[in-house]
Amino acid sequence: MTRTVVESKTRTAVIGFDEPFCVIGERINPTGRKVLAAQLEAGDFSTVEKDALEQVACGATMLDVNAGVVYNSNPNPNETEPPLMAKMLELVQGLVDVPLCIDSSVPAALEKGLEVAEGRPLLNSVTGEEERLEAILPLVKKYNVPVVAISNDDTGISEDPEVRFAVAKKIVEHAADYGIPAHDIVVDPLVMPVGAMATAGRQVFTLVRKLRDELGVNTTCGASNISFGLPNRHGINAAFLPMAIASGMTSAIMNPVRPVEMEAIRAANMLMDNDANGSAWIAFSRIMDAHKAGTPFPEASTAAAASGASRGGRRGGRRRA
Amino acid sequence: MTRTVVESKTRTAVIGFDEPFCVIGERINPTGRKVLAAQLEAGDFSTVEKDALEQVACGATMLDVNAGVVYNSNPNPNETEPPLMAKMLELVQGLVDVPLCIDSSVPAALEKGLEVAEGRPLLNSVTGEEERLEAILPLVKKYNVPVVAISNDDTGISEDPEVRFAVAKKIVEHAADYGIPAHDIVVDPLVMPVGAMATAGRQVFTLVRKLRDELGVNTTCGASNISFGLPNRHGINAAFLPMAIASGMTSAIMNPVRPVEMEAIRAANMLMDNDANGSAWIAFSRIMDAHKAGTPFPEASTAAAASGASRGGRRGGRRRA
Repeated sequence: MTRTVVESKTRTAVIGFDEPFCVIGERINPTGRKVLAAQLEAGDFSTVEKDALEQVACGATMLDVNAGVVYNSNPNPNETEPPLMAKMLELVQGLVDVPLCIDSSVPAALEKGLEVAEGRPLLNSVTGEEERLEAILPLVKKYNVPVVAISNDDTGISEDPEVRFAVAKKIVEHAADYGIPAHDIVVDPLVMPVGAMATAGRQVFTLVRKLRDELGVNTTCGASNISFGLPNRHGINAAFLPMAIASGMTSAIMNPVRPVEMEAIRAANMLMDNDANGSAWIAFSRIMDAHKAGTPFPEASTAAAASGASRGGRRGGRRRA
Repeated sequence: MTRTVVESKTRTAVIGFDEPFCVIGERINPTGRKVLAAQLEAGDFSTVEKDALEQVACGATMLDVNAGVVYNSNPNPNETEPPLMAKMLELVQGLVDVPLCIDSSVPAALEKGLEVAEGRPLLNSVTGEEERLEAILPLVKKYNVPVVAISNDDTGISEDPEVRFAVAKKIVEHAADYGIPAHDIVVDPLVMPVGAMATAGRQVFTLVRKLRDELGVNTTCGASNISFGLPNRHGINAAFLPMAIASGMTSAIMNPVRPVEMEAIRAANMLMDNDANGSAWIAFSRIMDAHKAGTPFPEASTAAAASGASRGGRRGGRRRA
């Protein structure tokens, strides 16, 4: 049974076929968030703190940390990202105890992140591009961490799911050459917008099942891509996630502060028999009752976490002995 | 490719692996509805009329019609059900043009229904019980209609999904002896409450896939059973349905007047590539916008159907030539 173990200083979470779905909170990322980018350049980390606390209260199993800001004062991310990544990781791991996901396109930022992160973080990401494979896999091996493998390569992102499967297979094989086991590779099969490609949903469901059956790997995705450009996106996301889970997907990088999507995941956990006695569902239902009565979801979740009525994002985790 | 064809006088709908999910409206059923039962005994069909129109406006592909009332004046359903079934079917098929599902535990009521129903109705149901097989399959053959096959037998409902699969297989084989093809059998694998049996969801997903792969049959279920006894049932149903659809389920007997469940099904149709250009989703999103702005879902759906903005329950259907 495939188990990808991630750890903070004090907690362990497992991504796996028989585990509750792993929600990787995506909010700590300045890409497309101008206000946050400006704050980070000015040394203001208040939004990062708020995003860390809220996402964990709402049920994130892990938090993604991305320092991909391009400073006005220095446009070279190879210089700016590594120290910012270190600063952000130190801040976040001081605030919350969930495992972290170090997310950058800059190898030096990933390595800096690996130096400062406590426990066993998830590295995000390697691709099938030759240069990327050679830069990232040695880090994965050196630090003995799991890695997200995105199924594009030097030819780009294929619309053919068989090609994307072949790229994932190539990454798993390259990793094996480094002594990295398949259970430490979390494949992102790439989710296209269903509004642009009508087969996008079916492609993911088929690919996830095949990745699981044939490569034995865990899987993840940027879940909200599926609904890009369409109205009522939360409604699409909230159907897509349970369908992906029923097909075998084991994690997603997503916004855990959205009640509709989180409700769908909590229900799917119970329906996959990963919620003993439905106790997580029942605790979550109380949060949804408060939310429907008018309390914003993050506040209702925070109050429940504080009262101990729910374990918040820590359900999938265990304190390390 | 398995296609179960059902027809009203003027419309055809297909239950199939590459068709939008078939929503069989469950509301016209006096079981557990004391007010409706009393109305029917008194000859008042106003609730039946309202339920027929609302369910179709909200998106039902077909309507189930059950006349299972026990009169105070006559407790023998063999005497009371057949004429009431005839009366209800005549009323409903005069009001709406979707195909109907004739639902009774009384063989004489099923036969009476087959006599009066126009087009090609779905018969609900046969089981693996010997007496029931012998009573129902000849009707199915004589009237050349498809039939719902419920996977219990003389030993009751097994908690073992392999036994339920074996019962379904037995029914399909018995039907073949009568010359009834597998594509006219719609198997209900029986959905248990996940609150009572933690494996209930997984069982259904596995069984549906196996029924499809090994017997080549369409499937249905009483969808809301899954959430029986748990809080926030709509949230569970709205995850269960997309998961069942991703596993291959092609229809459900359910309440189409519930926006949460219908939203999940509309999204799942698009994600399974059964909503060309997302046009049904976009039309439905306008109904949800009106609903979120305060209009009750049946009213918003009825208004959209009247304006032609949505085809309502008729998306899956075509006018017969």
